Formats: sequence, structure tokens, C-alpha cells
Amino acid sequence: MPEAFDAVDLIKSKRDHGELTTAEIHWLVDAYTRGYVADEQMSAWAMAVLLNGMTRREIRDLTIAMIASGERMSFADLGKPTVDKHSTGGVGDKITLPLVPLVASFGVAVPQLSGRGLGHTGGTLDKLESISGWRASLTTEELFAQLRDVGGAICAAGAGLVPADKKLYALRDITGTVEAIPLIASSIMSKKIAEGTGALVLDVKFGSGAFMRDIERARQLARTMVELGADAGVATSALLTDMNAPLGRAIGNANEVRESIEVLAGGGPEDVVELTLALAREMLRLVGQPDADVEHALRSGRAMDSWRALIRAQDGDPDAPLPRPRETHTVSASRDGVVSRQDALAFGIAAWRLGAGRARRQDPVLHAAGVDLHAKVGDTVAAGDPLFTLATDDPVRFERALDALDGAWDIADSAPERRPLVVERIG
Amino acid sequence: MPEAFDAVDLIKSKRDHGELTTAEIHWLVDAYTRGYVADEQMSAWAMAVLLNGMTRREIRDLTIAMIASGERMSFADLGKPTVDKHSTGGVGDKITLPLVPLVASFGVAVPQLSGRGLGHTGGTLDKLESISGWRASLTTEELFAQLRDVGGAICAAGAGLVPADKKLYALRDITGTVEAIPLIASSIMSKKIAEGTGALVLDVKFGSGAFMRDIERARQLARTMVELGADAGVATSALLTDMNAPLGRAIGNANEVRESIEVLAGGGPEDVVELTLALAREMLRLVGQPDADVEHALRSGRAMDSWRALIRAQDGDPDAPLPRPRETHTVSASRDGVVSRQDALAFGIAAWRLGAGRARRQDPVLHAAGVDLHAKVGDTVAAGDPLFTLATDDPVRFERALDALDGAWDIADSAPERRPLVVERIG
Repeated sequence: MPEAFDAVDLIKSKRDHGELTTAEIHWLVDAYTRGYVADEQMSAWAMAVLLNGMTRREIRDLTIAMIASGERMSFADLGKPTVDKHSTGGVGDKITLPLVPLVASFGVAVPQLSGRGLGHTGGTLDKLESISGWRASLTTEELFAQLRDVGGAICAAGAGLVPADKKLYALRDITGTVEAIPLIASSIMSKKIAEGTGALVLDVKFGSGAFMRDIERARQLARTMVELGADAGVATSALLTDMNAPLGRAIGNANEVRESIEVLAGGGPEDVVELTLALAREMLRLVGQPDADVEHALRSGRAMDSWRALIRAQDGDPDAPLPRPRETHTVSASRDGVVSRQDALAFGIAAWRLGAGRARRQDPVLHAAGVDLHAKVGDTVAAGDPLFTLATDDPVRFERALDALDGAWDIADSAPERRPLVVERIG
Repeated sequence: MPEAFDAVDLIKSKRDHGELTTAEIHWLVDAYTRGYVADEQMSAWAMAVLLNGMTRREIRDLTIAMIASGERMSFADLGKPTVDKHSTGGVGDKITLPLVPLVASFGVAVPQLSGRGLGHTGGTLDKLESISGWRASLTTEELFAQLRDVGGAICAAGAGLVPADKKLYALRDITGTVEAIPLIASSIMSKKIAEGTGALVLDVKFGSGAFMRDIERARQLARTMVELGADAGVATSALLTDMNAPLGRAIGNANEVRESIEVLAGGGPEDVVELTLALAREMLRLVGQPDADVEHALRSGRAMDSWRALIRAQDGDPDAPLPRPRETHTVSASRDGVVSRQDALAFGIAAWRLGAGRARRQDPVLHAAGVDLHAKVGDTVAAGDPLFTLATDDPVRFERALDALDGAWDIADSAPERRPLVVERIG
């Protein structure tokens, strides 16, 4: 490793509001990935970035340097357009499940490389693993074959993609430096660009259940990522979406698969359908199908066929019964009125504590654990009506889940003002 | 180790401009010292402190927590007042050498626990080790006996004193987090308070050759340390002193000992004498001798007797010849005029490159290496007069030392405005 730069100088430069050169950023990422720059140096640099920011050029260089740390895939030989979607994570966010087969049913390849859940936000792979036999790992050859034959694939990212991000993300997680927009944006976009997608739609969430609490920071993150996509030649746009209340009625794993199948069957909760359609239209617009009739694809069963093909291609049985919980606990309305608030973060934490999520990366999840909402914000309820049901295999978990939900919902005399789900499109 | 707090929460709190509680700060320092908080967490926290600051209460708690990490000494049984001095480090700063015996000659104990040099600022122990036989390490018993019998002692701090600072300082050094005033102040003051001195005078330097380039930051550091001393019951004051030009004519090790002996003999450069007297008066004022005739102590030989006793007590031979360099290189004036500028940092780096200082903690120093100034700022020179002489044992070092000195001095038509050496007293 040539000592082209001194890590301490680069830390001090960012600390003192300086701008790092392209060569400095490439050296830093490469030297950190190889272990020549120490974790304690990189975390100090990340904190300086979090507090002092990076220019657009620095963020672009960082993203390119991260991509250069590993392999790159290309779908150029596939013979059809590719489009991917990334969500910044929310509570009850199962949109990937109906969305990928829906978009794939229009003859588009959707290489959805997903992750597992950590903390109160669920992971797409955890949800799909509720399905008997389904496997998250595909070889590169399997992925290409499935994209060609089936159109959609949802699988774990290979270890060779952006190793710098794996190392840096694990470091940020334990050093209070996750929340830096330049680092979030380069982490997400380096993986999507390295993956080789031709187009990308970002679902950037704001609100209580989202990573970004306020819309202004979500907008800033969205703009940064859209710019990175444009700079890398990936057609990219973003929707800013509201994550103050859980999405849909199911929060967990198997119950979210069940709800996704309802959507694919032409039913399902209004908000899940709305967001699925909005993202599908945006993805299809980016690959030159602005007039695709996505509602018809749901009604006609075409999206469902695509779903069944995707699950079967990954060794899952789309007809197998989904796991049911051993224990449930239902909470009922104490008064007549209208549900006026359901705090997404609290419901997410409750589902996590019931076993739907994990606290450490190596923990397993309980596929049948979670929360089902019987009433959503705006629904009228009478005293005694069930509000939501907690589910788990392990009844000692109810107490801490109920603690999380203390004060997490309100019943009012009149319906709250209806808030739009999709607030803004960027790019 | 009880998991009373989560390190990530404390990092985020400081990152988000929060104030840590006393319990949080004590836990953090203790957990870091024991290895339960990782280096990469502590460096991220240190960067957040550097950029977001700490309140006076937090800095006090940090200092107390650092002291609690190790042993404390007490000189209460010594039967005489104790006073110590700390300098933030400069170029040509040999003041400790004449100062300790001078103040000790007034019946005061001066327990001067010193360090070694790193980078362009020299270390007191390195300078004294130019003296044949002199040893820097004293046991606690030897230190007490010497303070009782001789009055002054200059020695290395024991390993048991403030281990948290040793660990944290080494971390800050490689993570760009040295320059945080709360961390500098708590590092210096924790060691001085743990050492058990009754009074303390701080020589806080500003200017090109000092750690703090501008006077405002030096003033802020001085105030912070004076407050910490007052809070801990140590009578503390600070002098702000100018370090834009080297102090005295000698920069190195053996040559600085030689210059110190000239001062103790009643001679020596005007600036070294002025600062020695100012600090001695301040130290004696704090121990109740505001009218001590420190000039007389130099003229009468009383301070010299005290010096010889100190050197002998630590096995040194005050009459042994000091090492002389094998090679010298003299730079002369290219024109008639008045020396109008000598950049302290450049001369410090030149002496360091000649071998007087070290780049890594484990490196040796060349005792005879350094720079001798034949003319100081304000002196009139004629073309061809020697300006300064570089000295080393290893002639390949001249080139890089001369590089450091490129543009580091000026000769003008008229004398520059005289700048005061001691600018302000705080506390």
C-alpha cells in the first residue's frame, strides 16, 4: 500500500471544513478497506463528515471509490431493460413483495438485491423466508437466468459487491455516525450502481417510523441520491413518502406476505395498493412505459402469475400455508370514536420485540410474530372493537411489546385530516 | 463492567449538541480505560467534542473521571508548599531548566513531572539527558526525598498516573482530535491535579511555534485550565506568552542545557531570562512569597547551587562536558539590515529534522543536534555575518533542515516593532 496520503491529514481536512480531492477520497476508501487506515481513524472522519458535510463532488467520488472496492455486475446482455427500487425502510413496508412481480409482468427485469431487518424496520428477505422452501441466495448465474426467464428476482446481495460499504456500515453502526446524509447516500447508491441496474426508483420515507424524522432531511437525502444516480448514468427518481403510521395492516413477516398476496389478488389495504402502484408507475416510466396499466395487471392476475413464478424460481412453494403464531393478544377500543393516530415507530418496536425483528445481525426472527391492525387511522370504532392483535410464539414477549405501544395511538371524536402518502417526486 | 450506558447513545448525545451527565462521563472514561468502549467509539466521541464543545461542568467531570482512572499523589506531609509549572510547548523552550532550581531555592518544593518531545517541540527530559549520568526516572520515594532535601525535581511521570489520559492521548494523536480545548485542558489538568501539587502556573503559548496559533484560542484554553484548577482546589494561574519566534538562541537539547546554565549564572538571552523571572514570580506569588527577589537568586549563585544539587540528586554530573555535534552548517546574512522575523515553527522543524526531536515515541534523539541563532529578531547584521548554525551528527540531515528554513526569516531595513513576550496573566 503506497503511503500516498496521511489519514490524520485527511481527517483534519474534513474536521476543518475542507474539501477532499478525488485522489484523497479514493486513497482513504481503498486504504480503509485494506486495513491500512484504522477503524478509529475512519470513525473520527465519519463524525467529521456527519457534522461538517461533503460537497456533491466529494459524495460522488466517495460513491465511485466504494464501488471500486469490489465487483460490478452488468445486465447489458440481458436484452431487456432493468429497473430496481430501494426503500429507506419503514414499518409494515412490504411493498417490494407485490411491486417486483407487478413491474416484472411488463417484460422488465427487476433485480431486487435486498437485505435483512435490523431493529424496528423489517427486512424483505426475512419476510419472504416465511414461505416454505424459498431461498434468498442466488448465484450470479441463477440471478441472470431468473431475470431472463421470470423477470423479477429478490435475493441477497453477493459478498463481493461494495466490500468497503460492508466494513464502513458496520463501523458507523457502533460509532453514532449512521445519520450522515453523504454516507447514507453513498452507501445506498454504491450498491445499486455496482449491481448494474439501468434505472432506479427510491422510496425515501420520512416521519416517526422512518430513518429520517423530518421531510426536509428526507428531501435532502433524496436529492443527493438522485444526483448520484444521474452522475453514474442510472436513470433515478425518488418519491418522498409518509411513514408516520404503519403501512398497511400487517407488521411482521408471514402476515406481511399474506397482505402482499392480497394486493397481488387485487385487494389489500388502500395505502399499500396506492404506494405499490405509484412506485410501479415510476419504475415503468423510467424504462419507457409511461402508460403501462398497472392497475389492470393486479386485477387481471398477471402480477400474481409473475409472483408465483418468482417464488417457485427460488424454490419456494407459493401454495404452502404460511406460519401462524402460537399466541395472540388483542387490544380493544376503550371508547367510541375515530382512530386519529398510530405511531409507526412504536408499532415497529412492538413487532420487533414480539420477535419479528432482530437486535443483532446473527439473531433469527420469528416468522409468525408481529402486529395486525384491525383499524387504521381514520377508521371509526366502537368501544370494545378490536384495535390490533399482537402475535408471537413466546408469550413472555407481550409485556415489553405492550410497553412500546403505551400512548402510541389515539381515538378522537372526529376523523383527522387525511395526509397524502406520496408527498413529492424528485428527479 | 455493568452496562450502565450505551456508548453509541453518549456519542450521539454529544454529536447532537447534548450535555453528558456526570454519571455518563464517569462511565465513558472508566469503560474506555477498561476496554469496554472501543477505540473507534471514543475517537468518534472525541471528534464530536472537538466540533461541538463541552460545558464547564462536563470538562470538570471529565477531568475528575480521568484522575479517578489511576493513582493520586499527595505532598501534604512534605512540610513545605508545592508549586508546579506547565508549558503548552514551544520552540527553544528550556524555561523549566532554570526555573525549577530558581523557585526551589526559595524553600519551595517543585515537583516537575515532565515529558519527552514529539514533533517540532522539544521535551524537557530529552534536554536533561544530555547531561552525563542524569536519569529521568525517580521512584515515588526518591521523588519525595528529593523534594524534601533538594526542593526541585524534574522527572518522568509514573505509569500509574491518569492511565485514561495515556490511552486517550495516543488515540487523539492518530485521529485528528488533539486540538479540542476540553480534551487538551482535561489531559493537562488531570495529570497536574493527580500529581498533587498545591499550586500551578501555566505557560500557555500562542503563535507560529505554539500548539495554539491564535491568542484567542490560547486564552480560552488558559481560562478553561485555570477554572479546572480552581474547581480542584489547586491555586492556578496562567501567563499567555508569545511563541512566534524561538525562545532564546538555542534550539535542541545539549545547547538548550548550556543556555539554561548561562541564565542560572546570571547571563543568558534576554527573552529566556524575562520569561524565567515572570514564571518564577508567579509561582512564588501563589505560594505566598510575592516579594521574593528572584533576580538576586540568579545573580548570587543561589539558583545555580540549587541546579547543581538537583542534577546530582538524579545522578547527573553538573561539571561533565555537554555533547558537541560532529557536523555544523552556518547560514550567513545576504545583506545588511535588521533581523525582522524568525519563524518559530520552521526553526523547530529544522531542529527536529537535524535529530533533536523524534517522529515516533520510541525513536532516540541526538543530544548534540539543533540550531543556534547568532542573531535574534531586532538584531542588526551586516552582509556575511552568521545568522544561525545547524548542528547534527549526520550531515545528510542538513538538506531537509534547510528546506524547512526556506523563507523562515527576513532581514529588513529597520527594526520591527517590539512585541511583548508575556502578554497577559489569567487567574
